[in-house]
Amino acid sequence: MPEPSNKENYVVGVDLGGTKILAGVFDGSLECVGSTKVSTKAQRGLDNVISRIERCVRDAVDEADLSIKQVAGVGIGAPGAVDFGTGTVMFAPNLEGWKDVPLKKDLEKQLGVPVFVENDGNIAVLGVHVVELKSKPRSVVGIFVGTGIGGGLISQGELFSGFNHTAGEIGHMVIDVNGPKCGCGNRGCFEALASRTAIFQRIKAGVKDGEKTLLTEMLGDGLEDLRSGDLRKAIRRGDKFVSKVIEQAAEYIGIGVANLVNILGPDVVVLGGGVMEALADEMTAIILKTAKDHAMPGTMKNVEIMVSKLGDSAGITGAAVLARREAK
Amino acid sequence: MPEPSNKENYVVGVDLGGTKILAGVFDGSLECVGSTKVSTKAQRGLDNVISRIERCVRDAVDEADLSIKQVAGVGIGAPGAVDFGTGTVMFAPNLEGWKDVPLKKDLEKQLGVPVFVENDGNIAVLGVHVVELKSKPRSVVGIFVGTGIGGGLISQGELFSGFNHTAGEIGHMVIDVNGPKCGCGNRGCFEALASRTAIFQRIKAGVKDGEKTLLTEMLGDGLEDLRSGDLRKAIRRGDKFVSKVIEQAAEYIGIGVANLVNILGPDVVVLGGGVMEALADEMTAIILKTAKDHAMPGTMKNVEIMVSKLGDSAGITGAAVLARREAK
Repeated sequence: MPEPSNKENYVVGVDLGGTKILAGVFDGSLECVGSTKVSTKAQRGLDNVISRIERCVRDAVDEADLSIKQVAGVGIGAPGAVDFGTGTVMFAPNLEGWKDVPLKKDLEKQLGVPVFVENDGNIAVLGVHVVELKSKPRSVVGIFVGTGIGGGLISQGELFSGFNHTAGEIGHMVIDVNGPKCGCGNRGCFEALASRTAIFQRIKAGVKDGEKTLLTEMLGDGLEDLRSGDLRKAIRRGDKFVSKVIEQAAEYIGIGVANLVNILGPDVVVLGGGVMEALADEMTAIILKTAKDHAMPGTMKNVEIMVSKLGDSAGITGAAVLARREAK
Repeated sequence: MPEPSNKENYVVGVDLGGTKILAGVFDGSLECVGSTKVSTKAQRGLDNVISRIERCVRDAVDEADLSIKQVAGVGIGAPGAVDFGTGTVMFAPNLEGWKDVPLKKDLEKQLGVPVFVENDGNIAVLGVHVVELKSKPRSVVGIFVGTGIGGGLISQGELFSGFNHTAGEIGHMVIDVNGPKCGCGNRGCFEALASRTAIFQRIKAGVKDGEKTLLTEMLGDGLEDLRSGDLRKAIRRGDKFVSKVIEQAAEYIGIGVANLVNILGPDVVVLGGGVMEALADEMTAIILKTAKDHAMPGTMKNVEIMVSKLGDSAGITGAAVLARREAK
C-alpha cells in the first residue's frame, strides 16, 4: 500500500525498550527530522516510565523545531503482548511490573495527541517492509536480536498479528529443549540462546571459568559496562573466546532462520536489532550457512535473507508508519 | 469459500504416503462413496509406485460403482516438496529415489483425467478446514503425526503455501539442537522426536537396553510388526515403559504446538495423523498442558487445540477438495 504523502502530516514514532526509549519525528515522506533517546529506568516504576516516554516525545518534537500541536499521532512499539484496540500492554517481560498498562489512554491524556500501540517486533518489521523494502515482498519474517529476540510477520503484504495479536513471538520458540533457562521460565528458547543477554551471560560465565579475553583488559574483570560494540572490537583484535561465543550465537540464529523458513516459507527474512547492527560482519556468513544447512531442500530457493539497513531506527520508523496509517 | 454443490461432479482424493496409498471417491457434497488402500512399496521403484497409484484410483472408482469417465479430477497429497504448477514432486524424503518426479503428467497420461498434486500436510489441513471446520476459522495450523510429521497452514481463510510452496514444513523445525539425528541430516527436528518413527526407535532401543514391556510378549523380541495401536493396547494393560515413551512424545508435540502458537498466533491448532488417531486419549491432555506451559502468556487465550475427527481420511478428503477446486 503506498503511503499518502503530506509534508505537513508529522507523526512521532517511539521505540520503548527494556533499557532505552527512542523517539523520532517523521515528516509526510517518512523522513526522520528529529530524534531523542532516554533511558527507560523501568525499576523506577510504571508512572515514571510513562512520564519518560512523554518527555522523550516532547524533546524529539522540540529537536525538529515543531510543537506538539503539529503532530497528527504517536505510534509506539512496546516489548510485549499488546491489545491493539485498547492500546493496553498486557505484559512485558523486560519491563518490571508492566501488566495490563493502559499506555494509549495514559499518554493521550498527557500529550493531547492520538496514540497507537503495537508489539515492537511487529512495528520493526512494518518499518523495514514499508520504508526499506517499499512494501514489495508479499511475505516477510523479521528477526530482531537485541536484549531479547523479537519478531514480526508480513503476510500477503500486510502486518499479520494473529488471533491474540501475539503472532511473531519467535523469541520464545524452543530450539534446545534442554538448553539454558529463559526469562519466560522455559528452557532453550531462541532468545535464551542468541540474544545479547544470552551472549553476555555466556561471556561472563566463561570469564569466571578462567577463559582469556581482551574484554577484561578493555573493561575490567567485572565486565560491567559491556556492550555489543565491545565484542566487535575484541574480535577484530583477535579475541578467540569472543569469536567462538559469537559464532555459536550466529549458528543459533541460523537455526532460527531455518525453522522460520521451513514453517512460513517467506519471500524475505530480515535480520535486525542492536546485536545484528554491531556484529553483522562477524555473524552474517555463519547465519546464512547454518540456515542453508538446516532448511529443507527447496525451501530456501531464491529466498532473500538480508540485514536491515535501518538498524536501531527500524522501531521508530515502523511506529511512525503505524501512526501515519491510524491517525485521522 | 463455499464449495459448489454438484452431485454428478465426482472427484478422487489420493493420499500418497511412505508406507501406504489411500484413494477415495467423493461426490458433489464431499461425501466419500468408495475407497481403497494399497501398500506403497517405494523400494520397487518409481514407475511401480505410479502404477500402484493408478490402480488404487481405478479400484476406488470401481468400489463406488463408477467409471473413470465420471471423474472430473484427481487430487494427490504427496509427502515432500511439490511444484504445484507443474505437479512435480521435487523431493520426498520418505519415498526412495523420488526427485523431480512429474507425477501430474505421468498420471494424467495413464488415467486420462486432470491430476493436481500438493504437499500432503497442506492437503490434510485443507481437508480439515473445509469439511470438518466448514471453512470458518481464519487461520489454522495443522500438525499431522505419522511416519513423519507434516504440517499445513490456513491463513486468512485460505491454504497458505508460501514463496517456494514449502510453508508448513513443521516436521523439520529444530526443537532439540543436540537431539537425535533426523532423516534430513539435522539433529532434533520435531519429527525426529515425536513421529511414529521416533517413538518406535525409542521403544526398540529401550528393549535392547533391557526395558521390560508387554510389547515383546505381544509381538516377540524383534517387535517386527509394531503398530501405533499396539502401543495403545500396551498402555491400557499398564505398560509403564510404553507409557513413559508416549508421554515424552506428547510433551514434544506440546512444545511444537507452543512454538507454532508463539510464531503464528492461529485461531485453531488441529492435531491429526495416524499416531494421534491411535493415541489421542493417551496424549491429548499432556499435549495441552505442555503447550500451555511453553506458550507465552496471552498467546493461547481462546485458541482452540483440537484432534481432527477425520483421522486418516484427512488426506483423501483434502485431496478431493483440491480436485474439486481445480478441475474445470
